[in-house]
Parts: sequence; structure tokens; C-alpha cells
Amino acid sequence: MDRERIPVGILGATGSVGQKFIELLTDHPWFELTALAASDRSAGKPYAEAANWFQESRLPEDVAGMEVRECQPDLPCRIVFSGLDSSVANGIETEFANAGYIVVSNAKNHRMDPDVPLLVPEINSAHLDLVRSQQYSGGMIVTNPNCSTIGMVLALKPLVDQFGLESVHAVTMQGLSGAGYPGVPSLDILDNVIPHINGEEQKMQSEPLKIFGKLINGAVEESAMKISAQCHRVAVAHGHLEALSVKLKHKVTAEEIITAWNSFRSEPQELGLPLAPRQPIRYFPEPHYPQPKLHRNLERGMAVSTGKLQECPVLDWKFIALSHNTIRGAAGGAVLNAELLVKKGYLEAVSVPAS
Amino acid sequence: MDRERIPVGILGATGSVGQKFIELLTDHPWFELTALAASDRSAGKPYAEAANWFQESRLPEDVAGMEVRECQPDLPCRIVFSGLDSSVANGIETEFANAGYIVVSNAKNHRMDPDVPLLVPEINSAHLDLVRSQQYSGGMIVTNPNCSTIGMVLALKPLVDQFGLESVHAVTMQGLSGAGYPGVPSLDILDNVIPHINGEEQKMQSEPLKIFGKLINGAVEESAMKISAQCHRVAVAHGHLEALSVKLKHKVTAEEIITAWNSFRSEPQELGLPLAPRQPIRYFPEPHYPQPKLHRNLERGMAVSTGKLQECPVLDWKFIALSHNTIRGAAGGAVLNAELLVKKGYLEAVSVPAS
Amino acid sequence: MDRERIPVGILGATGSVGQKFIELLTDHPWFELTALAASDRSAGKPYAEAANWFQESRLPEDVAGMEVRECQPDLPCRIVFSGLDSSVANGIETEFANAGYIVVSNAKNHRMDPDVPLLVPEINSAHLDLVRSQQYSGGMIVTNPNCSTIGMVLALKPLVDQFGLESVHAVTMQGLSGAGYPGVPSLDILDNVIPHINGEEQKMQSEPLKIFGKLINGAVEESAMKISAQCHRVAVAHGHLEALSVKLKHKVTAEEIITAWNSFRSEPQELGLPLAPRQPIRYFPEPHYPQPKLHRNLERGMAVSTGKLQECPVLDWKFIALSHNTIRGAAGGAVLNAELLVKKGYLEAVSVPAS
Amino acid sequence: MDRERIPVGILGATGSVGQKFIELLTDHPWFELTALAASDRSAGKPYAEAANWFQESRLPEDVAGMEVRECQPDLPCRIVFSGLDSSVANGIETEFANAGYIVVSNAKNHRMDPDVPLLVPEINSAHLDLVRSQQYSGGMIVTNPNCSTIGMVLALKPLVDQFGLESVHAVTMQGLSGAGYPGVPSLDILDNVIPHINGEEQKMQSEPLKIFGKLINGAVEESAMKISAQCHRVAVAHGHLEALSVKLKHKVTAEEIITAWNSFRSEPQELGLPLAPRQPIRYFPEPHYPQPKLHRNLERGMAVSTGKLQECPVLDWKFIALSHNTIRGAAGGAVLNAELLVKKGYLEAVSVPAS
Repeated sequence: MDRERIPVGILGATGSVGQKFIELLTDHPWFELTALAASDRSAGKPYAEAANWFQESRLPEDVAGMEVRECQPDLPCRIVFSGLDSSVANGIETEFANAGYIVVSNAKNHRMDPDVPLLVPEINSAHLDLVRSQQYSGGMIVTNPNCSTIGMVLALKPLVDQFGLESVHAVTMQGLSGAGYPGVPSLDILDNVIPHINGEEQKMQSEPLKIFGKLINGAVEESAMKISAQCHRVAVAHGHLEALSVKLKHKVTAEEIITAWNSFRSEPQELGLPLAPRQPIRYFPEPHYPQPKLHRNLERGMAVSTGKLQECPVLDWKFIALSHNTIRGAAGGAVLNAELLVKKGYLEAVSVPAS
Repeated sequence: MDRERIPVGILGATGSVGQKFIELLTDHPWFELTALAASDRSAGKPYAEAANWFQESRLPEDVAGMEVRECQPDLPCRIVFSGLDSSVANGIETEFANAGYIVVSNAKNHRMDPDVPLLVPEINSAHLDLVRSQQYSGGMIVTNPNCSTIGMVLALKPLVDQFGLESVHAVTMQGLSGAGYPGVPSLDILDNVIPHINGEEQKMQSEPLKIFGKLINGAVEESAMKISAQCHRVAVAHGHLEALSVKLKHKVTAEEIITAWNSFRSEPQELGLPLAPRQPIRYFPEPHYPQPKLHRNLERGMAVSTGKLQECPVLDWKFIALSHNTIRGAAGGAVLNAELLVKKGYLEAVSVPAS
Repeated sequence: MDRERIPVGILGATGSVGQKFIELLTDHPWFELTALAASDRSAGKPYAEAANWFQESRLPEDVAGMEVRECQPDLPCRIVFSGLDSSVANGIETEFANAGYIVVSNAKNHRMDPDVPLLVPEINSAHLDLVRSQQYSGGMIVTNPNCSTIGMVLALKPLVDQFGLESVHAVTMQGLSGAGYPGVPSLDILDNVIPHINGEEQKMQSEPLKIFGKLINGAVEESAMKISAQCHRVAVAHGHLEALSVKLKHKVTAEEIITAWNSFRSEPQELGLPLAPRQPIRYFPEPHYPQPKLHRNLERGMAVSTGKLQECPVLDWKFIALSHNTIRGAAGGAVLNAELLVKKGYLEAVSVPAS
Repeated sequence: MDRERIPVGILGATGSVGQKFIELLTDHPWFELTALAASDRSAGKPYAEAANWFQESRLPEDVAGMEVRECQPDLPCRIVFSGLDSSVANGIETEFANAGYIVVSNAKNHRMDPDVPLLVPEINSAHLDLVRSQQYSGGMIVTNPNCSTIGMVLALKPLVDQFGLESVHAVTMQGLSGAGYPGVPSLDILDNVIPHINGEEQKMQSEPLKIFGKLINGAVEESAMKISAQCHRVAVAHGHLEALSVKLKHKVTAEEIITAWNSFRSEPQELGLPLAPRQPIRYFPEPHYPQPKLHRNLERGMAVSTGKLQECPVLDWKFIALSHNTIRGAAGGAVLNAELLVKKGYLEAVSVPAS
């Protein structure tokens, strides 16, 4: 598999998530970036001209000169990563799946479709089976959760497994890059907190129910856990910090929870997926850690940091969790999904578009 | 009462809270600022020289020239407002009370003393009776709660009264001025959130129990409500925003809660205290309001803004509350306490120090 | 004149400058806000619905309910204040002038027209005479300079008059509101400085030449001073701070310069124009003053603060100047221009549009 | 030389610059970090306990456990890097030099001593000869310039060499880490610019005269260029951006200047010093580049970025320069100095302290 790299493309390549895809796919051991697609406005231009590259890394030279193409299903690749805006993602992703592409999407549109996996490889790789019931001609669609959901569900996974989770109360303080680019106007956020992110609370309250659902007879039966979320935008470039309180089914000690986090390993670690964090969750014992600025890049932005575990006088336990919203919470999560698909042989299971 | 203004002094006049006291006491209709006291380092200097005035308002000319005195109980005034650091407040405040002064303190030291009112005039003015059991020779001490407590308890008060409050879950996003000056280093908070404020969560979990306690046989019996708090420092100059979820004893509608907030009036409003907000709590129906930058100065920083009331899947209701931490949450709260003391005749009840 | 207020309207009323116009015209002693106009998208809606009010002040109740109209020259007013975007200002302003309106514009489009005054009432009120040569049917257009120009020319005016100015070197650090709304994306400016503002340096280098020009035979002969400008955007909400160095024709002392600033008074002060600052320029002797956050609102944002006057080893003197970019540098400057027009009798000199 | 690494120590190891030294010396090919020294308060503790590590990198495990020692000249190393505060640097550095250590200092104290090189390896490595006249018993002291000086002199070096520099006018916008830790209070800089950095302008106006001075008869004859500097602190974590204007002796084109920058190479590059940037100066043609957030880490923070070259109507040319203040401008500059000393054989020239 490693001998010849798999050709991959990016839909929505000029946007915020598209740029992160480029960073993560450059020099990827399994994937070779062969196609960049974006809106008609960008199509036909060299990437460096079409995109306003605003990452702190330098735009790779070879990507800079690539011609941006239209989002038409004639791209020379087998997998397309979608960083499309939700206003256009629905139709384009369906078109690509119907044309035989494997669509690995970060858009929200298909996440809650009954036959589309809402995939976090450390949590529910079994849900990949859902694609067998997809009716796309030759291709498939898999999705990753919203950027604020993913940090929470990863931090909860060992608790769900070992102690049983009845309910979770989440209050988020989310980084600016979660709103894309240009995103939040500086006049709105300087010296301020904005206590509203459109649709975010609803996503945090519904997506985990599917992610933690059980696959029964080829369908996901949603979890019965109760979730409450309040979302806020803060003056942080990257990183979503979440204050979480949980009610558990079993009585546990702080040490047991911390051990559950630090020792947690799952399929991506066992399979040695290239982008998988070696330790998906790390607990920081320092009372003022984790912090977005200091810890968002833990394990190349793919791990979740937890901290401040304390007994909660209202529920059972409270703590904080931090994850990088555009890496683990978006492009990185999607690339990990694609790596899982490859390793589990799903590429052979679908027809290959002629390139 | 209005004919002759009451001479008042400030302990810790050069600090962050001390400066806010100066702003609020300048041109106060009842009080006349006659004494400024601070540490030995400042004593003997004109105020403009001793203090690093960092308010956006201009330092009043007459205050600029006043000589700063030591914190010795020989100040020419009847009431002293204490903005002292907790490391020194204990002894000095006791000394002043024993010398016959009325000490209106913002420091934490005496807040939980059984015979000291932890006073929010809109909530528990009856607790003023506690001073009758104080053993200070001639003087008294009254306190106001921590800056993060006060916004929460004001927003909760109508719910406690009308619907019964079983538990409250609070996650705060607090402004920088709550840490005093120099306070939080800029390198720590730029592009960051600090998920730790020393002692803050404990204060938020204990102070409301006393504030909402019942006065029985001259002592406060603490409330049985359950409180959980997680505190965070964000890159906001002033204003504490709090995400609150509550469990109520009675079933209510959103409209009933909103009406309870907007129509809430209490003793400071009825007595016409000068610094009392006309409407202590205001609900904002806009989904992205209130915001620290836009609403912290509501009613001169003395009112609490609430917003985003929604059903909570884990408890009953969730919403946000915002208050100005150095005005309502510190100096303004203390001045309102003093106004209540004056209006209720407590000044006549104590001996007057010779000035 | 004061008995009956003059009806005025705002073109571009929903934008950033438009909102400042509303703040400044509400309760204005001479003017009555009778018309709000904006793009077709907003026309027909109540203002509160058409505009995203993002000022820290509350939107006045009566303005909230006013219907926004199209920018057609049938508005019921005599003066229109233009906060239009330069992409549309040219045609609309001409149309209004041709329809007999007095157009007081903040847009750049007509600033350098030979027959249009580029007016700073403290500096070149004589330039008002230019309107006599305007060919608009019945109306007229007057303009104010760019927000970064105005602080500089005000600080320079006494030096030009008293010591002769040969050249000025300017480096700016400009507030975010200068870019309008939504303006600068937060991801671009958090933890950053952007060393580029489109067209700004050119404006700073050319506008002062006209402002300080002499009116000769009904035309402005531009000043021969040399100006160099480098412009930067910084993470400040409001206020443009400028580091200025000057070469003077005469030898002077620091005291003479400071006195020239502090004692400077001009026509708006003598005429008692309502929005005129009592002291247009104030020198701060403290070595770390002025600062945008502390001093931008000096004299309701209409005065310029100077500081840090030192000998310059390369030119003669160096110092800093600060002014509020959306008040003195935009809406406030325009309102002061209109006040000057009224006081000098220019309203009687033009035909009045039927309202 | 590479076989056995040279033992080095850090004076002031817990501070801001000390921490950067640790980052740069960990895994250094020539140096081995064998001693950490700090104030008495820290002495005796493991480093992780003594220091508040606030870098975004993780504290290296082996450094975390090292015991912090007192700043006494009995450290087991040959070179000491000094990140000491200027209040104590003078005496301690002299003591170490007298005890035979090579002191490579970032402190300002000895910079202007006639026999101490104020060293920028790309500019004045010949000044190293000055140490021959030093009277320290066995050791020596070399220094690097102030963090705001170094970016300027590097950007000027090719202009000085090729076109002759008569005068330079500098206005800085400096990052927060230049003030050390805790440094600038967040309340002072949020939504603000502080137009004052103590002593900074004087350093920028005097240090380059020595750096660009000629070594004549064993002494440095200062350059006659004229320098004017105005310094500002902005809300940027790291990176000093400087707006520079220059008067040159020869007439040149923009292309010649850009070529002079991009092609500039000097001794550190020729000698292949480990920390030397391959291209010390890089010109960015984009009109909004360089920016602190995007380009401060160019060549591991050791290169200078320039941009926005334009003709200056007052002097000859204007442009901007950016450098990383705690890397090239402090710890990195000092390490490069030490590498130069090693490569040029100065270690053999001094006696070695017994370790």
C-alpha cells in the first residue's frame, strides 16, 4: 500500500479547512495531493493566486502552482476531502459519491443521514459498516463531527466505556478559526466574548448521540445520554476549550478517571494510522492547564487535553477538555477517517473513477 | 440627610478597587470623600503621585492633590470603604471597626464571619441585623460578595423567590480587571483562556449559601441549594459572563422566568438609593446578547444582563448572565451597601469617631 | 437659528460611519435627524432591522423605528451627511448636490476636486469659498479628510503657522474601526500588526497639501511641504496613533512647541460650534501618554492628544499624536463642517430642496 | 570539535530569555547544557519547580530535573549564557569573566564598554578582536545588541556596505515578550498601544553606531550615521516590526536594494554556524507582508524579513523590517555569537575554569 500513494483531491481547497487539508496532505505517506477544486471564481487560476493563504506555515511550492479546478466529478483522484461550505456541500458531495469517489467530508450536510458514518476512529469505527447500505453509484460518503463535538466525545469515550455516562453538561469557549475566514470581525471580538455560534449547540447536543450509538442490524441506534451545550466565541485563534460536567452510572474515583484517560488507546493507535495520536487523551495535573495557546498543538493537534478534574456538587464530576478545532476538529479528523478507510480495505470495495 | 454629606474614606485607595471607589464617590450626593489611605509606601505622597491611575476617566483634580495617609484608624471620616488586599485586610478592618468606624469592605476576609452581613441589598438586606451581634467597639463591618458571585446571585434571586432553586451549575468567563493591577500578564492571556482563578470556584460555591440563607434567631442558616462552579479568565477588560444552568422546584415557562427578571424590584429601588439600578435585571431577547463589551455598563455598571434562556436537557433551564466585575461586583456593590446602611439609620446606631 | 432645528439626513446610515453620525446627531442642538438612507437592500425596513447596530451606546428608540429610505434625492432634509462607501459615493453625492442638497461627505471621492473644500474648520475654513465655483444646481459638496490625515494636520497646524513646516515623516498605528464593519477579520489581527492599509499612505501624503494650501484667485494652491507616510493596522478598536517627525523652517524650543499646541484656538472655538473641542490640541507631559485606550475620547473624541516631544536626530523634532478615527476623523469632523456651514450662513446661500 | 560537545551554562535560567536559551541549547550540535543558575530564591530547586515555564514548547525532561544553582563562578561549564536582569548582570558577569569563563551576554550592562564586542556575526565579527584588550583574568565578555536594534542593523547592513547610509529614522511596534515575564499587564495593552519602552529609543540610537563602527588600532571608532527612534509596545506576543526610512549616500533603485537584501550572506553563513540562517534577510514583495504572526519564525526566528520598499518623500527610501525579538533579538543572537567564538578558536585562547 505504501509503495504507490493514493491520489486525493480537495473540494473547497481555498477555504480555511481546505488550507488545513493542504498542510496535512503535503508529505503524507499514503496520500498524494493531485487535485484542488473550488468555486467557479477560483477555477482556472493557480492556487497561489486563487487562495488567500493565511496559515503560519508557508504554502508548499508545488501546491502554489497547481491549477484550481471546478468542483466537477472529473478530478484525477480516488478520494476527495470536502471542506465545502454547507450551502453547496450537499449536492456536490452527492455528485462525487455517485461518480464513484470516496467522499471524506467535514461538512455538516450528510452527518445525520442514517446511512452515513459520523466517524471518530477512536470511538465508532464499526459504524463504517453503514456505507454498505449507501445507494451512491460506486462511491461513498463518510463524515466527521462538528469541531466542538469532537473534543467532547473523545474526552467522554473512556468514561462511557468504563463508567457509563448518563448526562453531560458542556460550556464551550471556542477559537476564532472555527468560524472560517474571514469569519468573526475583529471589532466584534476584541475585548469581548460572543455568546452565540449559529447551530453549534444543537450539533453538540445531537451528534454525540449518533457517535455513541450502537450499530444494530445495519443501523445506528442513538445513545440515550442527555447533553446540554452552551457555546461561546472567545478571542483565541485556534483551540476549543470546554468546561464539562458529567453524571456517571457508576461510582468512581478521580484516579480511575485520570487513568482511564491516560491509558486510553483505540483502533487508530493499534492500526498505526499515520495521523493517529500516540496518546489520544492526556490529563494535565497542573491546576491551570490545559490552555489553548500552550496545548492545542499536542500530538500535532490530534490529541485531546483534559484537566481540572473535580467533584461536581450538581452532577458527579467536572473537568475541562481542549482540542484543536481545525486539526482534530476538522481537516485532521477527516484525514484520519480516510486513513482508517484505506487500512480497513474500503478503497478496494468501491469502484475507481477513471482519472 | 442630603444637606450635609457624610465624610467617607478609602482603605487601599491606590489599587484597582480603590480607584473605582474614587470614581463612584466623586460627586456622590450623600458621601464626601475626605480620606485616602494606602500602604506605607504611598503614605505621605499626593494621590496622583502615589497611584498609577489607569482608569479611562480622568483622575478628579481635587483627589489628585489629596495626601495619601496610612491605614491607621485616625482618618477624618465615619465610613471607610475597604479595597484592601486580603493579605492585610483582616487586621486593618478589625482595627477600624474597633475604633468606631463603619467598615464597608470588598475584601474576602470577613465575608463568612457568622456576625458579618454578606450583603446584596436587592437580596438580603435583612441580614444587616447581624451587626447587632458584632463585638467591635462602636464600629461595624459589612461585606459584599466576590465579583463572580454577585452577578450570579442577582440573576438567581427572582428564580429563588418565585420558582424555588434546587441547584445551579455555573461556568464563568471573567474579565481581567477582576485580578487587580498589574494582575494577569499579557503574555499569558493574548490568544488564550486561563482555566483557573485562585479560590474563585470555592467562593462561588459557598458565598451564595450564606447570601440566600435565612436569618433565624439572629443567625444566618445557610441555603441548601447545590452549586457547581468552573472559572475561566478571558481576554476581556471588564465584565464577567456566566453560563448558568438551574434546576427549579416548580415547573415554569420561559416567559415566566423572563418576566420574573424584568419585573424584579427590591429594597434599593424602593428606597431610591442613589447608585441603585432602576431595573436590576434586564433580559436581552437577541440570541447573541448580552456581551461584555456592549452591556457591562448597563445602568452605570450596576445592573445584571441576562440572555439566551433555553431549556436545559440536563437540568431545567440554562441562560447567561453578565455583570460588571469592578462596579456591581466590587466598588459599586460596596457603595450601594453603604447607601443602604445610611438610609436604614445604621449610622446613628454606632458611635462616631472623633475626626 | 436655534429655534427651529435644521432637518438633516444620513446617506449610508447603516454602516460604521453612518452609525456614528446617528450618535452625534441625536440630541444635536442645531440639527434634527429626519432621514436615513442606505442601499436598496435596507430600504423599506425599520432602521433597527436594517442595521446591525454595534456601537457601545444604545440605539436611540426613535431612530430604531425610522424607515430606511433609498439614496434618492427626495429626502425630507436640507443637509445630507454622507457615510457612503467610495464605490457608490461619487454618483449619489453628485445627484444630491444637483438636487439642491448640501452634501457634507466623509467619502474620499470628491476630496481632491478643485472646487470642493477639503475642510478642517480649525485649519482652512477660508477654503469654503471654493463652493462658489461649484456647478451643482443649487446644492454643494464639502468634504473632510481621511481619518489618518486629520489627526496629523491638526497637530501640525500650530507648527505650520508659527514655525514653518518643511517636511513631516509619519508612521501610523491605526484602530480597527477605520476599516469599517465587518472590516478586519479577527484571525488577521489577533497577535499581529498588518503593515498595509489600502490607499492610506497616498491619502496622507496628498490631502495635507490641499488642506494647508493657500486660496488664491478662488483656487487652492497646494502647500510645498514634503510628507512621507507608512500605515499600519493594530489591534485597537478605536484611535489612530501616529509617530511624527518634522523639519521646521525656524529654530524653536520644546516649550515653544508645547505652548503652541496647548494654546491653539481657531474659528470653531471662537464661533462656539456645538461639537468644537474647547482645546483642540492637548500635550501630555507623561512619557507614556497619550494612549488610544485612555485618551481617544478626549473632548468627546474631537480633540487631538500629543506627547513625547523630543529632538529628532534626523529631522528636527519628533512626537506622537492621537485622534479618534470615527469621531474627529470621520463623522464628528463632518458634523463640525456642517456646523461651520450653518454658522457662516451657507445654508441661506443655496436653494432649498422641497421636502 | 563536534566529537565532544562543549559544556555550557545559563545565568538567569528561569527568566524569559533564560527559557529561550534552554530551547535553543537543547539538542545543540556543539553545546551541552550542563548548568542552570538563577537567583537565590530558585537555587537548590529542580528547574521545573523553580521556573514558571511558559513557552509553547514542552520543557525538556532532562532539564526539568536539573538542579538550579546560584550564580556563583563554580559552574561546571566553559561558556555561560547570560539572560540576567540588568540590575544584577554587571557584577555577576564580571565575576564569571574573572573566573575564566566565556560570558556570552544578552544583558545591556557591558554592551557599550570599549573593550567588549557588541556583536552581530553577520556585521562585525572583526570586533571580536576587542577581547584581546579585556583585563578579565582568563575569561571574556561578549554581548549582543538590544532586541529592537538587531533587526534594524541586519536590515541596514547591505545598504551600509553597498550604498552608504547617512541617516535612518525608525518607528517600532514591539512584541510583548520583549518586556520579559510577567512584563506588560494585560489591562494596559488590551485594545491599546503603549508609546513608551524604557530606555529603548536611546539604545536604538546608540548601539548601531558601535556595531557599524570601524576597528582602528584595537578600538572601535563609532559610525557617524544619524539615527532617530520612536518605540511602541503593541498587542503582539513575539516579533518586533519596524518602519524604517533611510537617507543613502548613493542613488539606487528599488531593485538594487532588494537584490542587496536577498543576496546578502556573511561570515556565519560561510562558516556554516549551526544557528545561522541560510538567508539572513528576505524581502517579501507582497504589499501586506511581512507580518509578526506569519513571518517571525522565518529560518527558526533567526532571519530578518523586509517588505514594502517605497521611495520616501522626506528621506530616500522607506520600508519595514521584522525580526523575532527573543530569538534573533536575544537568546538566538547570543548562541550565534558563541558559535562564532567557537569556530574562530576563541575557546582555545582563554584559560579554562576547573569544573
